[in-house]
Amino acid sequence: MQRRAFLMRASAGVAAAAIARPASAQTGAPVRWRLATSWPKSLDTLYGGVEAMCQRVGQMTDRKFQIQCFAGGEIVPPLQVWDATQNGTVECGHTLTSFNIGKNPAVAFDSGLAFGLNTRQQQAWMNYGGGLELIRALFKKDGIFPIPCGNVGVQMGGFYRKEINSVDDLKGLKFRIGGLGGMILAKLGVVPLQIPTADIYPSLERGAIDAAEWIGPYDDEKLGLHKVARYYYYPGWWEGSAQVTLLVNLQHWEALPESYRAALEAACAEATVLMMAKYDTRNPEALRRLVAAGVQLRQFPRPVLDACYKAAFETYDELAANNPDFKLIYESWQKFLADSNLWFRIAENTLDNYRFAMSAQPR
Amino acid sequence: MQRRAFLMRASAGVAAAAIARPASAQTGAPVRWRLATSWPKSLDTLYGGVEAMCQRVGQMTDRKFQIQCFAGGEIVPPLQVWDATQNGTVECGHTLTSFNIGKNPAVAFDSGLAFGLNTRQQQAWMNYGGGLELIRALFKKDGIFPIPCGNVGVQMGGFYRKEINSVDDLKGLKFRIGGLGGMILAKLGVVPLQIPTADIYPSLERGAIDAAEWIGPYDDEKLGLHKVARYYYYPGWWEGSAQVTLLVNLQHWEALPESYRAALEAACAEATVLMMAKYDTRNPEALRRLVAAGVQLRQFPRPVLDACYKAAFETYDELAANNPDFKLIYESWQKFLADSNLWFRIAENTLDNYRFAMSAQPR
Repeated sequence: MQRRAFLMRASAGVAAAAIARPASAQTGAPVRWRLATSWPKSLDTLYGGVEAMCQRVGQMTDRKFQIQCFAGGEIVPPLQVWDATQNGTVECGHTLTSFNIGKNPAVAFDSGLAFGLNTRQQQAWMNYGGGLELIRALFKKDGIFPIPCGNVGVQMGGFYRKEINSVDDLKGLKFRIGGLGGMILAKLGVVPLQIPTADIYPSLERGAIDAAEWIGPYDDEKLGLHKVARYYYYPGWWEGSAQVTLLVNLQHWEALPESYRAALEAACAEATVLMMAKYDTRNPEALRRLVAAGVQLRQFPRPVLDACYKAAFETYDELAANNPDFKLIYESWQKFLADSNLWFRIAENTLDNYRFAMSAQPR
Repeated sequence: MQRRAFLMRASAGVAAAAIARPASAQTGAPVRWRLATSWPKSLDTLYGGVEAMCQRVGQMTDRKFQIQCFAGGEIVPPLQVWDATQNGTVECGHTLTSFNIGKNPAVAFDSGLAFGLNTRQQQAWMNYGGGLELIRALFKKDGIFPIPCGNVGVQMGGFYRKEINSVDDLKGLKFRIGGLGGMILAKLGVVPLQIPTADIYPSLERGAIDAAEWIGPYDDEKLGLHKVARYYYYPGWWEGSAQVTLLVNLQHWEALPESYRAALEAACAEATVLMMAKYDTRNPEALRRLVAAGVQLRQFPRPVLDACYKAAFETYDELAANNPDFKLIYESWQKFLADSNLWFRIAENTLDNYRFAMSAQPR
């Protein structure tokens, strides 16, 4: 059994030996952790953001609590951060939880659902609407303690080699997309494909896929997809708020002294503000460059959005009917979403709509 | 001179003796600060939020760095937090910086301007758009180091005894409003009045004023204004994002060891997430109760918004022409606002508009 566990870790590309079961640490005692991320170092928002978070924890504890940050694949493959945290290969990891919907689709509520809560609504639901308690109870089954640690906001809808003018244009579309978004689009005839980041560009270039979504202008620009597919669609309705999360091995979390726990939680909250702020600053500049490079911006037609909206909530209803975890969280989430949308329409959205329209006019 | 200073402090309601000039503290050394807020304890979002921030700093430093929190008026009058921090009566304070536009209207950029950046845009500008550097350079002249510490989002437009159907209805309107919003409305004939919180209800009840704005549904409900003025207008365009700020006496900031500084900054960022999340959760519930109690929700008519928008940017142009501090920050802010609005229109706003409209329909 031990040998098999070792082989599994080895086959997952884990370089280091397993970490011993933690003893409770006293304040001031040195604690050293390793953090596996799902990100390449080139993503200075996600990877850079969580690296800064680790430095902050070091600053707050006079270097007593040190967390070393690793890029995806360095010690753990990008999509195995959950497993590596669960089995104690690393003490913690930074990932998009919805990479793990294959284990249980209910984990998607931690990241955000298609046509669901926006960034502020997600933070409200998590912190005061009961969301975080539900998520923590679910993750506890796998020995994981999650802490929200960043958000990327509304993503773009990806790059397409041909225009999407109707729902029919989705039929047979080979689209690089993962998660529940892929499940939803499959209902409309899309062929969703999970393709590792590094393979997206060559796949799109040689026509093995027709379209690919990644994140938003700032990150998308780095992949260079606009050179092989000219139509850039919005909005990325399947990720209206993609929260990224620090997953902490529960035994290691419980062994931390109170001061280190507080430092880690506050540093993650700070990283949440800073990652979103960085995306919100870098995306406009990147979108301008992409448009200058010839990218054709396109909005998904209303009938396409309507079909996707219908398919999304049908998917949730089906998942809730078959999965008690999904059902439990869905009920809280759905009620919060309806109440919150009513309020956001009044104050925030009315002013945003007015300001944005006026801002587009010459003064 | 010393006696006069003492009398000034005494007349300002300061209970304790002046605090000695700080010596640099080593990590682990006990540091005790007092924090004066502008808030009554009944505001569990603002007062409660900054109180939780202080507790968090205590947790992170094993109670070595302790900050005691005071309600407005307990040791410093609510609107004198800036002065008390500047002169060292307290080490720090929590306030809306724009209470101090009488000293210099440029401080308003720290809080947010009418028709300006929304909450996320403000956080982006502050952290990655150069805003915080400009604000810190300005506040340094008064020996103050500011740290963003909360936001209330888009506010409501206040309670009115009569409907506002046209720009003419603004003429002669006695309106409880402060800050640049009051200056802007004065251009349209409004009589802006600064009235302490406790006096708003009786003034509106006996007709000494025609209307009053305060914050949003959750806080407004506590004042009971809906019992004496039935029309509740939106959006509160003069505060599209009201950032609240921790003002720290610069000498005391510089005397802190690195670990305490990091703890304080991270705790303020965490408070920013939590305050906004709490408002976003409590406001929908409160608005529902207000409407059930007979409040009439009204949107400002488009011609009224247009007149206010024009008056707002005229006001900024005038201030920039006469105040080099305002001009310097306005140039950065205005460029950021234009770029950011373009991007927010694309992804965030398109999806929000679609979701909110669909959410209001029966499924």
